[in-house]
Amino acid sequence: TQQLLPGLSPRQRPFRVANADRSVKKGIMADSLRDLVNKVMDALHICCVSALVLDEDGTGVDTEDYFQTLVDNTAFVVLEKGQAWTAPVQLTISPVKA
Amino acid sequence: TQQLLPGLSPRQRPFRVANADRSVKKGIMADSLRDLVNKVMDALHICCVSALVLDEDGTGVDTEDYFQTLVDNTAFVVLEKGQAWTAPVQLTISPVKA
Repeated sequence: TQQLLPGLSPRQRPFRVANADRSVKKGIMADSLRDLVNKVMDALHICCVSALVLDEDGTGVDTEDYFQTLVDNTAFVVLEKGQAWTAPVQLTISPVKA
Repeated sequence: TQQLLPGLSPRQRPFRVANADRSVKKGIMADSLRDLVNKVMDALHICCVSALVLDEDGTGVDTEDYFQTLVDNTAFVVLEKGQAWTAPVQLTISPVKA
């Protein structure tokens, strides 16, 4: 791992990353997109990350500068080769009407 | 258990932990993820914790650094082997219409 001088290194921030079918999610600390990708491979047992996309709308996050604009606890979906982002399912349970 | 020097040890903070079907919930003080896991086993009579996940979306909390970013009273669900997180049911109680 890369060791940056104190003061130059961005701080570790929390993110949430799910696999493509959202069956597994992990909270992960990372200071950069590269750092996050490395830790995602470890945490989710993925060998080859094809893309890291925003959970909410599938926006691909490819660059460090865009990554640094994201707020803490931004939710990602990690895609492996051949996988595509799908919209998150929102279940609403409504009271039964008589 | 690990004994840290006073002043270096993080303070005890409150958390809420439910079992997988949310039939039992406990308020538990912990200063670390390891501490919380130990106390959860005691409080909920669980011998083998498979994962501690966020109640709201099932995000797995595996690392101390991510754990330390969580706010007081964060709600967890504890999973034993073979158990999976399910979305919390939100019941809306509406006034009965005549």
